[in-house]
Amino acid sequence: MSVHLPDDVAARLKNSADLIPTIAQDYKSGEVLMLAYMNADSLAITIDTGHATYWSRSRNELWEKGATSGHTQKVISISLDCDGDALLLQVEQVGAACHTGEISCFHNPISLSAETGEKK
Amino acid sequence: MSVHLPDDVAARLKNSADLIPTIAQDYKSGEVLMLAYMNADSLAITIDTGHATYWSRSRNELWEKGATSGHTQKVISISLDCDGDALLLQVEQVGAACHTGEISCFHNPISLSAETGEKK
Repeated sequence: MSVHLPDDVAARLKNSADLIPTIAQDYKSGEVLMLAYMNADSLAITIDTGHATYWSRSRNELWEKGATSGHTQKVISISLDCDGDALLLQVEQVGAACHTGEISCFHNPISLSAETGEKK
Repeated sequence: MSVHLPDDVAARLKNSADLIPTIAQDYKSGEVLMLAYMNADSLAITIDTGHATYWSRSRNELWEKGATSGHTQKVISISLDCDGDALLLQVEQVGAACHTGEISCFHNPISLSAETGEKK
């Protein structure tokens, strides 16, 4: 795809050659849905199309979220963090974000130590 | 510090030698505050103490959030994602999460293309 990252956006990234961890958050509920990675091309496509497109590290290719599952993410807003190396997307999620069928990928709790509450 | 990651937690990580991108979310407002990294030691300390402790990639050392600024994060819950390579913390944030003084590190908007809304 012949979409290029706008120069002003590229200039704000810490390193436009790095993969950028990207958080997708449901814009209505505030639920954190998943963490994936973008490269400059996927960010450019996301900005251009308004559909969340990531870089798949396992398949080593661009990955439009929901292209096969139908569980797309319409992007409502994009924010860069203070040091330019992480992104937050507010999205309108169709269906489940997780390939397991759960709404969020973060569905595996890790218990805090039993004493933690008392120590505090 | 002589705290070790519980075996059952280590077994659930995709690779316990990797740095794990970790999202901190305000447990009340749902606002995503920051993205930082944990290694096995910092996760072990966080589980044990209930205070968010990360691995600083720039200083190459353990970093208890707020140790110098006072802007600590009391951990309410920890969730691992579906493939064991990202963490989500629900935290009670004291003061601002960002070193700039902003509540969230994600305070730099990136504009979507003007046509995106119409294309959808």
